[in-house]
Amino acid sequence: MNSQGILIVVSGFSGSGKGTIMKELLKKYDNYALSISATTRQPREGETDGREYFFKTREEFEKMIAKEELIEYAKYVNNYYGTPRAYVEEQLAAGRDVILEIEIQGALKVKERFPETLLLFVTPPSAEELRRRLIGRGTESMEVIEARLKRAAEEADGMESYDYFVVNDVLETCVEDVHRIIRAEHSKSCRNKAFAEQIKRELKGE
Amino acid sequence: MNSQGILIVVSGFSGSGKGTIMKELLKKYDNYALSISATTRQPREGETDGREYFFKTREEFEKMIAKEELIEYAKYVNNYYGTPRAYVEEQLAAGRDVILEIEIQGALKVKERFPETLLLFVTPPSAEELRRRLIGRGTESMEVIEARLKRAAEEADGMESYDYFVVNDVLETCVEDVHRIIRAEHSKSCRNKAFAEQIKRELKGE
Repeated sequence: MNSQGILIVVSGFSGSGKGTIMKELLKKYDNYALSISATTRQPREGETDGREYFFKTREEFEKMIAKEELIEYAKYVNNYYGTPRAYVEEQLAAGRDVILEIEIQGALKVKERFPETLLLFVTPPSAEELRRRLIGRGTESMEVIEARLKRAAEEADGMESYDYFVVNDVLETCVEDVHRIIRAEHSKSCRNKAFAEQIKRELKGE
Repeated sequence: MNSQGILIVVSGFSGSGKGTIMKELLKKYDNYALSISATTRQPREGETDGREYFFKTREEFEKMIAKEELIEYAKYVNNYYGTPRAYVEEQLAAGRDVILEIEIQGALKVKERFPETLLLFVTPPSAEELRRRLIGRGTESMEVIEARLKRAAEEADGMESYDYFVVNDVLETCVEDVHRIIRAEHSKSCRNKAFAEQIKRELKGE
């Protein structure tokens, strides 16, 4: 059936552990590629160009925008963040499933542009557990708690735009869930139109 | 997340081995229930009422139609075939995934009535392989081959109405593919609306 890779966007509540899940997934299976974002923000200590981010000047970044070299981009706190197109397209053509770890606004832009994108949303196993994690161990100030709840409420508002919910309870199980969802997605009839066409042609003796 | 079972329709090319796949699936995992059709045709040797089919008289069957006790039904060669509703609903409510092995006309009727039905289409790994199986070992008459090709072409015409294609190459792999698709389906956001609503309510402190 299809040998083309699938573009996957992973978002989730802050603190849902999506970064760890993706790291484990890439360690365990070799058919995945993680897209690295470009940004104009300064590298933090320990960050390496081409590993955490591609660090760009504002001029370089705006040139990328102008040349349509980004799948999506956004500005946060006066810095640009975006997904370079070339790497994603190369990996997809090579049959790898490419994962973008981005926020909902970016996710929806990607889906609009590439309707076959698979959107995954990572969440704790229950509302109670999420609330517990956000409120913390009683050592946080009311301001911090309020800010977290507000952020999470915004994130939750968009969760139904995603195709699947991935429950992060036990890390290992969760990694398997993500892998299973993506593997299953390869069998979708809409991703295998050429296969169906080929069968029809053969049966009609064309 | 959701504890409601999923209604699954499995169709496929004649000789695709879907019966064997389902048998293996049910043997291996206990969260599945296979729906048994009702029919007015005579039992064949070795068939038992309630195992292969529920054998009904025409009067009984027509009463079931009138009382809307069937999810779908059709008439082939002057006999009725249909899917009794009660068993399906009981099993779904108990959280089991219920499998119907029916033809495309029935599949589409079920999907229309229950849009959340998952439609799986079983196919050999390639058009060549399908054609080879249909043509057989050179011992078949031209009439038999023609009839098979015609039947398969009709079946193929509807295959894109299905949600997933399941490739039957190695039986064991295929059984795992079906299981994976159905498990993944449970994580679909549209099947977990209550979960998302619950999270939103909690975050807003309602």
